[in-house]
Amino acid sequence: MSKNIILTVIICISLNCFSQSDLKNDSVILKKIYTNALVNGKSYEWLDYLSNQIGGRLSGSLNAQKAVEWGKKELEELGIDKVWLQSVMVPKWTRGVTEFAFIETAPGVTTNVPICALGGSVPTPIGGLKASLIEVKGLEDLKKLGAEQIKGKIVFFNRPMQPDLIETFRAYGGCVDQRYSGAAEAAKYGAIGVIVRSMNLRLDDFPHTGSMSYGDLKNENKIPAAAISTNGADLLSGMLKLNPEIKFQFNMNCRSWKDVESFNVIGQITGSEYPNEYMVVGGHLDSWDLGDGAHDDGAGVVQSMEVLRLFKEIGYTPKRSIRVVLFMNEENGLRGGKKYAEKAKSKGENHVFALESDAGGFTPRGFSFNCDDNNLAQIHSWKPLFEPYLIHYFAKGYSGADVRPLKKDGNVLAGLRPDSQRYFDYHHAKNDTFDAINKRELELGAATMSSLVYLFDKYGVK
Amino acid sequence: MSKNIILTVIICISLNCFSQSDLKNDSVILKKIYTNALVNGKSYEWLDYLSNQIGGRLSGSLNAQKAVEWGKKELEELGIDKVWLQSVMVPKWTRGVTEFAFIETAPGVTTNVPICALGGSVPTPIGGLKASLIEVKGLEDLKKLGAEQIKGKIVFFNRPMQPDLIETFRAYGGCVDQRYSGAAEAAKYGAIGVIVRSMNLRLDDFPHTGSMSYGDLKNENKIPAAAISTNGADLLSGMLKLNPEIKFQFNMNCRSWKDVESFNVIGQITGSEYPNEYMVVGGHLDSWDLGDGAHDDGAGVVQSMEVLRLFKEIGYTPKRSIRVVLFMNEENGLRGGKKYAEKAKSKGENHVFALESDAGGFTPRGFSFNCDDNNLAQIHSWKPLFEPYLIHYFAKGYSGADVRPLKKDGNVLAGLRPDSQRYFDYHHAKNDTFDAINKRELELGAATMSSLVYLFDKYGVK
Repeated sequence: MSKNIILTVIICISLNCFSQSDLKNDSVILKKIYTNALVNGKSYEWLDYLSNQIGGRLSGSLNAQKAVEWGKKELEELGIDKVWLQSVMVPKWTRGVTEFAFIETAPGVTTNVPICALGGSVPTPIGGLKASLIEVKGLEDLKKLGAEQIKGKIVFFNRPMQPDLIETFRAYGGCVDQRYSGAAEAAKYGAIGVIVRSMNLRLDDFPHTGSMSYGDLKNENKIPAAAISTNGADLLSGMLKLNPEIKFQFNMNCRSWKDVESFNVIGQITGSEYPNEYMVVGGHLDSWDLGDGAHDDGAGVVQSMEVLRLFKEIGYTPKRSIRVVLFMNEENGLRGGKKYAEKAKSKGENHVFALESDAGGFTPRGFSFNCDDNNLAQIHSWKPLFEPYLIHYFAKGYSGADVRPLKKDGNVLAGLRPDSQRYFDYHHAKNDTFDAINKRELELGAATMSSLVYLFDKYGVK
Repeated sequence: MSKNIILTVIICISLNCFSQSDLKNDSVILKKIYTNALVNGKSYEWLDYLSNQIGGRLSGSLNAQKAVEWGKKELEELGIDKVWLQSVMVPKWTRGVTEFAFIETAPGVTTNVPICALGGSVPTPIGGLKASLIEVKGLEDLKKLGAEQIKGKIVFFNRPMQPDLIETFRAYGGCVDQRYSGAAEAAKYGAIGVIVRSMNLRLDDFPHTGSMSYGDLKNENKIPAAAISTNGADLLSGMLKLNPEIKFQFNMNCRSWKDVESFNVIGQITGSEYPNEYMVVGGHLDSWDLGDGAHDDGAGVVQSMEVLRLFKEIGYTPKRSIRVVLFMNEENGLRGGKKYAEKAKSKGENHVFALESDAGGFTPRGFSFNCDDNNLAQIHSWKPLFEPYLIHYFAKGYSGADVRPLKKDGNVLAGLRPDSQRYFDYHHAKNDTFDAINKRELELGAATMSSLVYLFDKYGVK
């Protein structure tokens, strides 16, 4: 062979180029995966049960425990090699009776607005909290206003999600500091409560909860924090412009308890050639308590389970050990993801690949990857295989909160990227329910995940 | 210049390659288009009115006339160069009182199932039509069974849409002959009625109407034809397996009337450089009568109107004459599309490009084109401009029923391709309503259409 040919061959091998027959064999497998998911898929039936028979499953709740037991039982029924629970202590926070709030324009003249407590908030005093408001567009406004204008008031964070960003997760990322750190920061200036505009691009009446942190505030300095629906936020903002003296009252009796024991649910098909190389596929089993968590993240849970079911179903024997992990407590603590990575490290398990689905059960568009350039080149060489399924997005980016602790040099972390336009209509709100799921979209997501796992299993992580 | 450079330049010009500055200028315009559509868009508000204040607008109905007047008024308010109505005679068919049907397992023992008349069907006799059934999987089964087994019976067409096809329009194409020609063919074998499984990939309780034809059957040989919901079809099929002797009764008093006058609604921005080159963007103003036609095709109507509004809004002056056409009678006659093309031909108008949106208001994925290879090369050179908006699909294929009559050598016809997974959940059924529309998805479609029209206007059709 000439030098050039040898060089080409070396480059080809190192870039994991396909031979025509590889391409053909792989496209046959992908076709089997997609066909089986769409014709005989189990993800939708699973999600129906998880959403409608169990429902919202906040960490530490009875429903979360039911979900653990259900997940274990369903994985055992798949007849895979191993199924087990991994103990993890999780925070327990309860919402208590349904919150309420109203705007008071004059004594006795009130307008109700929809709110909900942010996850982890302290309650209002018994009888509620009533005060004047000050509207801000973000944390940086607090410093400008200073304690003089904030003290004794409720701070109303009202920066909306930016509508002209195509990927709605970017718009979320540009706003969520108000929810996460608003109370901690406002308290430093003497605020006595915070109301945060819901992280929702749509104008509607659903308040959206989500995690928050008081940072290093002492207990006695913590102030109650609630989300208000986008329509409610616009109303409140409009009324404040007309009369800055209006009062706002809200009542919440949410509460934090001692940590309780819960579990990650893990199932494994042991690898036939490289059993000590682990590939994880997962979603999080916990959800917020307002809806039934069908999109966040029931979809990711059942899609991940479906990956292993599909491999069994089409008779594919993985070379590497494939684990499905149903993580506990992504929403308000990430304890499950951290525990899984900690245990993996302490046991010296070599996790070469991990994929999370936690962006809703909508039509899949592709994946984002936390990986090196050479991994991305390998992934890009597979693009033609995904074309028939309209999967086109393969770029560096975010993987997933639960798998991120598994990152180490040379391994690949990935996140499924479904269409994101509708996601924040439902995210952390009462309307995140099973009826907002389209069966085919959910199944296409599961097939797309299975296809990527198959390719990484077959060719390894370069 | 060397020969090679000259050749490269020629190839570059002929393929319409971009200079870096073209690419930059165009990407600025596209950004303006998308931002304006998402931040100040009018399509959603328009669709709200068309869906909720007017509603279903079958050709020849009062609502269709209201829609014509509304479309004209809204286009006039845009301050474009010309707005006019184009007269066209359309068929008029009315559903009458709501249809009903039941399965009779024994005298007096009945189970109701949801049906609706297919558009154009003759009514059942007064008092309904009751007979035994014969289930088939398609037109070809009729010949195998022959008149002996069909005569005097109701033929039940029950071939489902194929779930493993990724593009659902292909699955629709593989089934719709049952709906369109089922009655005409079954009547030839002596059937007295037909029931057709709804063209829907989901199992639910909505019957889906749609057009049908009796071909050249004489009036006295026409038999009534209805769609049954997918759940109803599965129930009926199951009961037939248990007892082939069960009877089916259905009652419909739909009716065809004389043709009536209606209109295409047309608006134009006259081209600044090539006023005699026409570029059409359109959707169809009529809809079926069961829902409010928000996806089919209210979405296409308001997206097409939005193209002209966006051009005005961002201050883009087209070189060519851009027309928005709101076609009448796509659903059951295509008279508007045919009339528009006929008039264009008779006036010698040179239509270089036409784009239709008639596949629902879901997240846009790209376009399919009825064009030559050199046009496709030109289009592919624009792909990088669309990447930030996750628009990735540019392939030869179907344009749209209304614009298809405009096809001639050298021009380009195109169809917007939105995500198709949910489309047939709503198509021609009672649940095709405004609440199934996501504002951002609709707006992204309008911006994507505007971007393509802008590029074809700027560079011309090569």
